[in-house]
Amino acid sequence: CPSNGTGGVGAEVLHALLTDLTKVNNSRERASRLFQWLICPNQDKTFFRDCWEKKPLLIRRQNPDYYQGLFSTAEFDRILRTDDVQYGVNLDVTSYTNGKRETHNPPGRALPYTVWDFYESGCSLRMLNPQAFSSTVWNVLSILQEKFGSMAGANVYLTPAGTQGFAPHYDDIEAFIVQLEGKKHWRVYNPRSKDEALPLVPSPNFSQAEIGKPILDVVLEAGDLLYLPRGFIHQGDCLPDAHSLHITISSFQRNSWGDLLLKVMPAALEMAMEEDVEFRKGLPIDYLTFMGVQNSDKEDPRRDTFVSHVEGLIKKLMSYAPVDAAVDQKAREFLHDCLPPALSEEEKSSSVYGASARWEDGEAVDVAVRMKGQTKIRLIRAGVARLCSDGEAVHLYYTTENSRVYHKEEPKSIEIKAEHTDAVEFLIHNYPKFVAVASLPCDSAEDKVSLAELLFEKGIIHTSEPLTTK
Amino acid sequence: CPSNGTGGVGAEVLHALLTDLTKVNNSRERASRLFQWLICPNQDKTFFRDCWEKKPLLIRRQNPDYYQGLFSTAEFDRILRTDDVQYGVNLDVTSYTNGKRETHNPPGRALPYTVWDFYESGCSLRMLNPQAFSSTVWNVLSILQEKFGSMAGANVYLTPAGTQGFAPHYDDIEAFIVQLEGKKHWRVYNPRSKDEALPLVPSPNFSQAEIGKPILDVVLEAGDLLYLPRGFIHQGDCLPDAHSLHITISSFQRNSWGDLLLKVMPAALEMAMEEDVEFRKGLPIDYLTFMGVQNSDKEDPRRDTFVSHVEGLIKKLMSYAPVDAAVDQKAREFLHDCLPPALSEEEKSSSVYGASARWEDGEAVDVAVRMKGQTKIRLIRAGVARLCSDGEAVHLYYTTENSRVYHKEEPKSIEIKAEHTDAVEFLIHNYPKFVAVASLPCDSAEDKVSLAELLFEKGIIHTSEPLTTK
Amino acid sequence: CPSNGTGGVGAEVLHALLTDLTKVNNSRERASRLFQWLICPNQDKTFFRDCWEKKPLLIRRQNPDYYQGLFSTAEFDRILRTDDVQYGVNLDVTSYTNGKRETHNPPGRALPYTVWDFYESGCSLRMLNPQAFSSTVWNVLSILQEKFGSMAGANVYLTPAGTQGFAPHYDDIEAFIVQLEGKKHWRVYNPRSKDEALPLVPSPNFSQAEIGKPILDVVLEAGDLLYLPRGFIHQGDCLPDAHSLHITISSFQRNSWGDLLLKVMPAALEMAMEEDVEFRKGLPIDYLTFMGVQNSDKEDPRRDTFVSHVEGLIKKLMSYAPVDAAVDQKAREFLHDCLPPALSEEEKSSSVYGASARWEDGEAVDVAVRMKGQTKIRLIRAGVARLCSDGEAVHLYYTTENSRVYHKEEPKSIEIKAEHTDAVEFLIHNYPKFVAVASLPCDSAEDKVSLAELLFEKGIIHTSEPLTTK
Amino acid sequence: CPSNGTGGVGAEVLHALLTDLTKVNNSRERASRLFQWLICPNQDKTFFRDCWEKKPLLIRRQNPDYYQGLFSTAEFDRILRTDDVQYGVNLDVTSYTNGKRETHNPPGRALPYTVWDFYESGCSLRMLNPQAFSSTVWNVLSILQEKFGSMAGANVYLTPAGTQGFAPHYDDIEAFIVQLEGKKHWRVYNPRSKDEALPLVPSPNFSQAEIGKPILDVVLEAGDLLYLPRGFIHQGDCLPDAHSLHITISSFQRNSWGDLLLKVMPAALEMAMEEDVEFRKGLPIDYLTFMGVQNSDKEDPRRDTFVSHVEGLIKKLMSYAPVDAAVDQKAREFLHDCLPPALSEEEKSSSVYGASARWEDGEAVDVAVRMKGQTKIRLIRAGVARLCSDGEAVHLYYTTENSRVYHKEEPKSIEIKAEHTDAVEFLIHNYPKFVAVASLPCDSAEDKVSLAELLFEKGIIHTSEPLTTK
Repeated sequence: CPSNGTGGVGAEVLHALLTDLTKVNNSRERASRLFQWLICPNQDKTFFRDCWEKKPLLIRRQNPDYYQGLFSTAEFDRILRTDDVQYGVNLDVTSYTNGKRETHNPPGRALPYTVWDFYESGCSLRMLNPQAFSSTVWNVLSILQEKFGSMAGANVYLTPAGTQGFAPHYDDIEAFIVQLEGKKHWRVYNPRSKDEALPLVPSPNFSQAEIGKPILDVVLEAGDLLYLPRGFIHQGDCLPDAHSLHITISSFQRNSWGDLLLKVMPAALEMAMEEDVEFRKGLPIDYLTFMGVQNSDKEDPRRDTFVSHVEGLIKKLMSYAPVDAAVDQKAREFLHDCLPPALSEEEKSSSVYGASARWEDGEAVDVAVRMKGQTKIRLIRAGVARLCSDGEAVHLYYTTENSRVYHKEEPKSIEIKAEHTDAVEFLIHNYPKFVAVASLPCDSAEDKVSLAELLFEKGIIHTSEPLTTK
Repeated sequence: CPSNGTGGVGAEVLHALLTDLTKVNNSRERASRLFQWLICPNQDKTFFRDCWEKKPLLIRRQNPDYYQGLFSTAEFDRILRTDDVQYGVNLDVTSYTNGKRETHNPPGRALPYTVWDFYESGCSLRMLNPQAFSSTVWNVLSILQEKFGSMAGANVYLTPAGTQGFAPHYDDIEAFIVQLEGKKHWRVYNPRSKDEALPLVPSPNFSQAEIGKPILDVVLEAGDLLYLPRGFIHQGDCLPDAHSLHITISSFQRNSWGDLLLKVMPAALEMAMEEDVEFRKGLPIDYLTFMGVQNSDKEDPRRDTFVSHVEGLIKKLMSYAPVDAAVDQKAREFLHDCLPPALSEEEKSSSVYGASARWEDGEAVDVAVRMKGQTKIRLIRAGVARLCSDGEAVHLYYTTENSRVYHKEEPKSIEIKAEHTDAVEFLIHNYPKFVAVASLPCDSAEDKVSLAELLFEKGIIHTSEPLTTK
Repeated sequence: CPSNGTGGVGAEVLHALLTDLTKVNNSRERASRLFQWLICPNQDKTFFRDCWEKKPLLIRRQNPDYYQGLFSTAEFDRILRTDDVQYGVNLDVTSYTNGKRETHNPPGRALPYTVWDFYESGCSLRMLNPQAFSSTVWNVLSILQEKFGSMAGANVYLTPAGTQGFAPHYDDIEAFIVQLEGKKHWRVYNPRSKDEALPLVPSPNFSQAEIGKPILDVVLEAGDLLYLPRGFIHQGDCLPDAHSLHITISSFQRNSWGDLLLKVMPAALEMAMEEDVEFRKGLPIDYLTFMGVQNSDKEDPRRDTFVSHVEGLIKKLMSYAPVDAAVDQKAREFLHDCLPPALSEEEKSSSVYGASARWEDGEAVDVAVRMKGQTKIRLIRAGVARLCSDGEAVHLYYTTENSRVYHKEEPKSIEIKAEHTDAVEFLIHNYPKFVAVASLPCDSAEDKVSLAELLFEKGIIHTSEPLTTK
Repeated sequence: CPSNGTGGVGAEVLHALLTDLTKVNNSRERASRLFQWLICPNQDKTFFRDCWEKKPLLIRRQNPDYYQGLFSTAEFDRILRTDDVQYGVNLDVTSYTNGKRETHNPPGRALPYTVWDFYESGCSLRMLNPQAFSSTVWNVLSILQEKFGSMAGANVYLTPAGTQGFAPHYDDIEAFIVQLEGKKHWRVYNPRSKDEALPLVPSPNFSQAEIGKPILDVVLEAGDLLYLPRGFIHQGDCLPDAHSLHITISSFQRNSWGDLLLKVMPAALEMAMEEDVEFRKGLPIDYLTFMGVQNSDKEDPRRDTFVSHVEGLIKKLMSYAPVDAAVDQKAREFLHDCLPPALSEEEKSSSVYGASARWEDGEAVDVAVRMKGQTKIRLIRAGVARLCSDGEAVHLYYTTENSRVYHKEEPKSIEIKAEHTDAVEFLIHNYPKFVAVASLPCDSAEDKVSLAELLFEKGIIHTSEPLTTK
């Protein structure tokens, strides 16, 4: 684990790590290293083998500065002052007293004047998407989403000493509870039954009587981490002597095999009905006389035959399952969920965001600086774009025009003409290598440049060197 | 086949047959006999084995009166005069000349003054739901729907001599073309490809060049029948010397195994995701890097593993397939599609429609005539009602309050309380036997009578004898 | 008043009157005579001067048969048996006991078996649109609507002896309570305040304490009539010795000057804003500082100036009021509300409904019988059609394709080309005179015939003699 | 007019003026002074008497720096780089060449790389709401809206030398064209007809042939102003030797007497129909026989009587016109349209935005600093809030939570309890005076403080001194 040296300040460690990461060539490698930092000293491989979706993991560091720089209450206060934080949208005020969970959001903007008043009177504060307000949280999550292959989100929780803000419950996401300031007392409980293991929807609030005995009862201190698979019930409260600030990083909401099958099955059945006459043949004319709930107690051999036939057809569906197309549906949704990449200065300067075209001394200058055959390009991040077919047309979906506010923008894509798909695939598969525009497999030099221009203008690719007039 | 004897008039034959059928105790048996009359001299069993959904069947009778009484152009004229027939809703005016198919419907009501003018100028007339206007057609279809276990519909076609009203096409239903008057020249063609066999949607109009050579080229005369499975292309035109009137009886629209699977699969997947954690486990965190269309050409062993896993889950879905519940969904739709039963005088007099309660001499009389323990009851028709569970409540769906106009009424059902379901099943499974109200498996005598009253009031059951005051 | 002579049966009197009316040349004259019969021996002129919208009128006849034939409980029973009467749609079952008003409608069809059971247990029955089931009621209302220039509707009320079905209330329509059978005790009360005089919405149910003392306390007997202007509170109950059947004929719902102004004012303002710059000039830039509720207590001369200016503009609106166009909007709604005309045999035979085109002996005959220049035509009823302009196009709205069920059909109209409007006006203004097709002010003989054909096909006009081939 | 002295830099002048304005006690006075600066050396009074809504006004200054600091192309470039400017939403790329007007917006974000490329190729750039991106424009408009009593908006136009970006047209707003950089040649034309004077909707693009001869043909230079009333057609193009940057400040869209009547009239009619029986009386039963378009040529004295009656009722409407309530409807819409106030540092520090409650050294501090009886308060701006009644409840509408993006937020209001309305009116009418919380006309000291707290928390009021703990 990276250490903050002797007398070093924590924020500098995370800052240094994030700066180091900008020098890592491949964004997937960056994501792995950042995740490694999160769960250090555990290894990625053992974590995914032993804990992920299986059991809680507690990491105690005795290093209160380990996560420093990620977020702080000072940052919280600054955001309230500077940004348009709305009660109920960006911030929840909650309490859990004598077994009763309440929300106290007034309407309108959350300003320090009212927020700190709630806090002083014992309410917990939950900031709902700190990534919209904090560049560091945005940066961290936008990197981690490439690790998970699923949206990475976050909430921040600030709890006064001696209080509890939420009732016992379980979530529908994999949760990394990162203790940032103070201390928090956590109790964790096993899923109550097999049916509540790895749930796809969050639980209601539980009473203490419903949840049994904790399997874990710990006090998290600043620098510690607690990982909880979805379905594990948990509750946290502050000791009388310290407030608590933590951020929960989450992922894998509705990202199960079943969720994929929800895309696969309707498409498989549609295809089977089109291509296989067995699916179009009529039902037996008398099937209503022996099938259906009113006949389910009947001993009738025709019932077995009927059910077997249905099962045979389900089995046949396997051969019509359009798995890649269904994955593309999931991928499209993922790219819509994604945060836009938080670009480094170098990435900016080599992309459209840093292009030198500008207004200067009463005229537009450096307007002629554009793509050429020898310009070397690549995707700006491995996961920034994806080629998907919906059967008729091919689109390149991309994340660069997404908002830091979840789904504020519609899904973004550009239609890729048939003669350009090879070139786009070429770019995708060559990542992280830069390739010359001239090497794109297009018919004409003009096509190569115009495709490269299009992708550059959308921020999807950058160049090996900032574009110049030469 | 029933014959119309010496000098008998056709209409009397069908009339006699329908009267005879009212004496058949079991409505399913009635349906079989009427279907037998339709396809006579072919046997039910051989027909379904050799022709149904497989190949056309031509029956020539040399008996122009065989189907007489079912419908006639005189009836057509009477309906125009008496009923509110609307162009475009109940009647289409069409032509097919020099390869061009046209519809000539004006807005508003179709009266003889304009309809016969269209006919005289060479247009074909298609009446879209004669069952709404003709009691005989209603009666015949309401009986046949019990044979098919799927809605039976009909269109009537009147074509002037020397003309053709429709372009070559295929339908999405099993069709029985019944020649009623005059003659019609038919050409029938094989489905153009495997994908068009037993289609689930009708074809567009074809040009002559698209359909190949006919496999059948015949002239239907009054009394003849031509059965066509869906997917077989056909066109009919009138010879210069005779007009044609035929009725096409149809069934099995969207009644395929695939249509059942459209109900089964979403429910199976929902259940599997609830009950089996394998379906809730997360996808591999790196699956987007090797799956999806942009990776479909990659040789990557992880692709095979991934697809195998999906296939394994599909196979597992078989054990979660709620076949009976899915059949009930189909059944509910069928009962909504159904015509209401066309009751015989005897059925009327022993049901709520014939109850003697009435206004007479300034007062309501016979109001006290109601169900008693010894009253014997049964369903008024085998297919008139069906018990279906939607998981939470149990409903009895029924057809008696349907309209003769397709889907004019909402689906009709009554919720059956848990303590009454056994009694309703008892009634259903005892059909065609009458059972005493007292024998219903309910807790109290009061329950038995109130359930019987409820079913009687909806017309779902009738009594062995008309209710009397005694 | 027409008498039913010695030993005559009442129904024959109304029947004879209606038959006589078919011989009256002008449908407006027919409407006046039928209304005269209704209120006889009062004169039309004095009734509208002294009672209409002013005060109740009681007519006692001592002639129980006077209204016989209009409707009866026997007819009620027949309708239940024959027609599809739905609880809640066509029939309400109500009671008013111990000051509590209840509705007892079950779902579904109302059959004698259940209806008479409700009646026997003391419930009142209200049939909501008897005109859909009774040809006589239809005929009477379709004639009266031409008298009122506003939709004429009806409800039928059957009440068991010794009961009351409804709470005290007032209606939003002019009501003619026609006692058909038995007796009913009525109490009528003045409107409770000036604001409830001639109300535009019906009242809620009142308690006895809210309505004061009756101004009228009478027992209506068969043959009697009670007219109530809207706003007069009333309640009726049956004496212990007799049931009651009455029909309430109603009109003038939302037919006030204010309702017309609701059409006039938006159009007037739109026109003024287009044509008069005074309406487009800007408001004073400081008007918000002295106008508005928060400034309404200020003494500020600018307030008076402002209000005066608004009043001046309102006054100016008078000169932009498109009264005729607004009347046309009302007329369009009236024609949509109207019952279709109930045609006499003679009207039928001289209109499209009686045209001789028909199917006979295997062919369409009399198809060539059509309009000629010398054919004499007129509107089939004065109020059957109306020419309205919506500013852009001119449409002829008509009632012949309306349904006997209120608003079951969309408003019916045909666009009248500019070159045909004079001819249509010519027809309208010449009613009740017949005019030759050749005399229509159209450009060409062809135009005259095609316009006449169009109107004839819609049933809007009829001919002086049934069309023949000659 | 304020001058920029010897060697002064323009931006400093505007900056100094805006700083001076923060010291003006009354925001309405501030608005007047800023407007005076805009039209200087013309006087406010003469401008509104002679030019406003009447005729164009040209002001030549020979002082290119007069408006400096309001906006610049450098600012334009900075915004493109920093903010999320979307083509089609915030920026339009247009051209007008050879009489053809085109828009060239691609989808997505507008970055300098593409924007300056369009500009270089001869396109004009229109930034649609610079107030969302420029604090100075926001500040200026938020002050001016108090002058106009109607929303003040702005567009910025950048045009390359030798080009024209827009076709001749007129607008539906009062326009102040402020030349910021370079020069622009303008031609102005009279409204084409009386009907196009002070129009309520903008014109389509005109061809040169449709607009006649200009009444004004000038070259605006930096520092000049051209005022155009709505309806005056105009077109501007750049001379070959200079680009042009101007900002158009606009107001008075749909702010006419007619627009007020659109609120007044429906309410007046509704009230009249409720309170005056003359409006509820029925129409003459025969009115359809002499009124309506089909009777409009008839000479019938009843027509005159009818029209006179309608006119009499319209006249009566005057006495029911709820002018103040209608003004409140307009005011509510205005407050929704308004920009939020751009607060000075002093305003911030004395309002909720500057409250000292904050997070410091691990705890919330200064939370106890709140309103007291002796705290002196007033509205933060005259126009920041308005008390409106909708007949049932009284609401205080306010602008402080509006967005700088038009209508991004819903209308903001708080319901004012009956016992607090006097206190709110007291505050409104005392502006710009500060009043002690204790002096508010409320029943209890607690009420006074809680009302003041509420208004303070919404940013509607500020205090005479920043709140302190003392």
